Amino acid sequence: MSLKFKNAKRIEGLDSNVWIEFTQLAADPTVVNLGQGLPDIAPPVYVKEALSKVAATDSLNQYTRGFGHPSLVKALSCLYEKFYQNQINPNQEILVTVGAYGSLFNAIQGLIDEGDEVILTVPSYDCYEPMVRMAGGTPVFVPLRSKPVDGKKWSSSEWTLDPQELASKFNSKTKAIILNTPHNPLGKVYTREELHVIADLCIQHDTLCISDEVYEWLVYPGKKHLKIATFPGMWERTITVGSAGKTFSVTGWKLGWSIGPKHLIKHLQTVQQNSIYTCPTPLQEALAQALWIDIKRMDAPECYFNSLPRELEVKRDRMVRLLESVGLRPIVPDGGYFIIADVSLLDADLSDMENSNEPYDYKFVKWMTKNKKLSAIPVSAFCNAELKTQFEKFVRFCFIKKDTTLDAAEEIIKTWSSQKS
Amino acid sequence: MSLKFKNAKRIEGLDSNVWIEFTQLAADPTVVNLGQGLPDIAPPVYVKEALSKVAATDSLNQYTRGFGHPSLVKALSCLYEKFYQNQINPNQEILVTVGAYGSLFNAIQGLIDEGDEVILTVPSYDCYEPMVRMAGGTPVFVPLRSKPVDGKKWSSSEWTLDPQELASKFNSKTKAIILNTPHNPLGKVYTREELHVIADLCIQHDTLCISDEVYEWLVYPGKKHLKIATFPGMWERTITVGSAGKTFSVTGWKLGWSIGPKHLIKHLQTVQQNSIYTCPTPLQEALAQALWIDIKRMDAPECYFNSLPRELEVKRDRMVRLLESVGLRPIVPDGGYFIIADVSLLDADLSDMENSNEPYDYKFVKWMTKNKKLSAIPVSAFCNAELKTQFEKFVRFCFIKKDTTLDAAEEIIKTWSSQKS
Ligand SMILES: Cc1ncc(COP(=O)(O)O)c(C=O)c1O
Ligand SMILES: Cc1ncc(COP(=O)(O)O)c(C=O)c1O
Repeated sequence: MSLKFKNAKRIEGLDSNVWIEFTQLAADPTVVNLGQGLPDIAPPVYVKEALSKVAATDSLNQYTRGFGHPSLVKALSCLYEKFYQNQINPNQEILVTVGAYGSLFNAIQGLIDEGDEVILTVPSYDCYEPMVRMAGGTPVFVPLRSKPVDGKKWSSSEWTLDPQELASKFNSKTKAIILNTPHNPLGKVYTREELHVIADLCIQHDTLCISDEVYEWLVYPGKKHLKIATFPGMWERTITVGSAGKTFSVTGWKLGWSIGPKHLIKHLQTVQQNSIYTCPTPLQEALAQALWIDIKRMDAPECYFNSLPRELEVKRDRMVRLLESVGLRPIVPDGGYFIIADVSLLDADLSDMENSNEPYDYKFVKWMTKNKKLSAIPVSAFCNAELKTQFEKFVRFCFIKKDTTLDAAEEIIKTWSSQKS
Repeated sequence: MSLKFKNAKRIEGLDSNVWIEFTQLAADPTVVNLGQGLPDIAPPVYVKEALSKVAATDSLNQYTRGFGHPSLVKALSCLYEKFYQNQINPNQEILVTVGAYGSLFNAIQGLIDEGDEVILTVPSYDCYEPMVRMAGGTPVFVPLRSKPVDGKKWSSSEWTLDPQELASKFNSKTKAIILNTPHNPLGKVYTREELHVIADLCIQHDTLCISDEVYEWLVYPGKKHLKIATFPGMWERTITVGSAGKTFSVTGWKLGWSIGPKHLIKHLQTVQQNSIYTCPTPLQEALAQALWIDIKRMDAPECYFNSLPRELEVKRDRMVRLLESVGLRPIVPDGGYFIIADVSLLDADLSDMENSNEPYDYKFVKWMTKNKKLSAIPVSAFCNAELKTQFEKFVRFCFIKKDTTLDAAEEIIKTWSSQKS
């Protein structure tokens, strides 16, 4: 085959993707899908209605401003002004993107050069590493480790970065750290003290921070989501990433945003204007209308930012009980809508699984999807090659699901467990 | 300011953008906007209704397949099978993207390496050059030139590439040529003979072809749109790019697609999965539904692919008459919805325009927008630095506009002309 048909070097080795592989598997309608972070609960009625109405307006089906539809950046600036110490300039300090993915991509392409080092935690959301590699950057990994927790419940808050170990990863080549709080897949919500350690290192080493906060509203009682961009000295060096898909349980809308100082956002804007130019207008206008509804009732219990975590807390607790009832020890998440557990205790017989080079969790999830009709996501997908073995006994279950879906999962897991004993 | 705040090298110098600059100017509601290719006619009712309906279905608001929603890639493969000699595999030979922009970006990032040469015509759609530069490629320019046309109408078909000159641009470093037919801004529809010259050169030099065909349906009587991918030896080396925005007059939907052989499409898929992962589900499903309606009546006059060009032909002819009536000689387009004319004949007094380093057409359009409340797009925006001066007397008017908008433009132009004489 012609040499000219070859891929560009920047994407060499970046063609495998956990979502594509496991979404295909779970596409079988008889499978109960607790895999991808895909809500099957109904999104808020006013969100869907906003899109239905907007679609009927001719002009809202045409191009809008490339860096963000005017009414949307206005709504976002108004929403986030409540959380930042400063006003946020809607045109210069916000960029609307194709999902949080698009924000991360624009930030990395706009700011990371060949040879720059970027610090990533392990585990972390799977797209960070290939995005950094595609920009020619070098990912530098730092593990989240759990303290021993004999006896008591295992909480995501036991998982921490070792401050010394983290500090040892910073050097003059460090361009950025990518932080994710609430954390996917651990469910960890970083504390003020933890964020201070990170902020101090960023300032000391003059490093950028890309803070992925897509689950910012989904925090359970006893914890609070904090924005590292609001820490002293951090605004000027932080890009904060949000997602409409996660905020309103409409992952299919693929709208996200970056918030940060003009001197950084402008580079993300340059990437956007040379890659996709602008995001879909009807979705942006509908999102703006939906945001206004909740901005006006931020303190009310019906505000979706308050009601969704309440709804999810019940589902989380149910998942904890279910997993415990079959002898597993789930890591109880403080935020987000995922729960992970060491599944090697289930002693599944994976001997007939092909592709024996795969990590345990890949084989386990494929086996479970095929034989138990239940799907999940292998946690080693969130780890670099070197640390995969430390996490390959864990799988991640998504619990933003209707009760009937959770009933079906419960049925599968309990039957399985009773067959074993 | 910290060095770490600097942009990555790949976007150095790529921050200016004609759409952003001129869309801002035309945002004044008193301005009659014939600038950006933004239809103000109503999109087809069934297209808008499809989106309204889809938005009400919970599951269609969630993530779908990353490389294209199943029902959409099926509809696209069915549509295009009518035009290609072969069947098109919906999963491996089609990629759904964020507009044609996204397709171009994925193709260029996935296939062009540092140092590769990419041949571009001048003028050509403005995003090609910065996209090639962002990938580290070297754009190599070849001008479209007009034959002398004294007396008779000036048609876009007079503008051609010189075969010798084109051949001289190919060498062992040439990775691709980017072709655009029907052409923006000239309105040129490449003939079979012209495409043969290009195809032969691509094959002889083992070069890829990225064929931007977003105006494929918009061809006026006497001309026919041809796909270079269907020429012998070309399928295996061609990526063909389409756009829902242009197909259904919904530019705000920002959905596009790339069609090509699996061995090339897979590289575009790799870029997509590491940049935005997936396109919005509700828009993809609505587009699929709209496509089926027109696929089933392809030969009927009501099919939008047939009715829109008929509607636009009337508007094109009106624009020709209007521009001629004030002494201009427009280049009559054979396709697309833009018309360009040498406006230096209008003798506008630009002496009070600041920024005297700008090309004539930039100053002219700014002056016209401010003083005449009519906006357009400067054609030198579609030219590389060296050839800008050859086109700076031309401006581009968009005519996919309601009759009332064209009435308003006519009023402005006629009043202006009568004041002059
Ligand atoms: C931590 C994290 N970041 C980013 C994303 C991508 O979000 P979006 O769908 O808005 O691109 C996800 C999706 O699951 C996520 O979990
Ligand atoms: C020739 C050409 N290619 C690509 C595009 C971008 O299309 P989309 O809006 O689908 O990204 C345009 C838009 O005007 C165009 O004229």
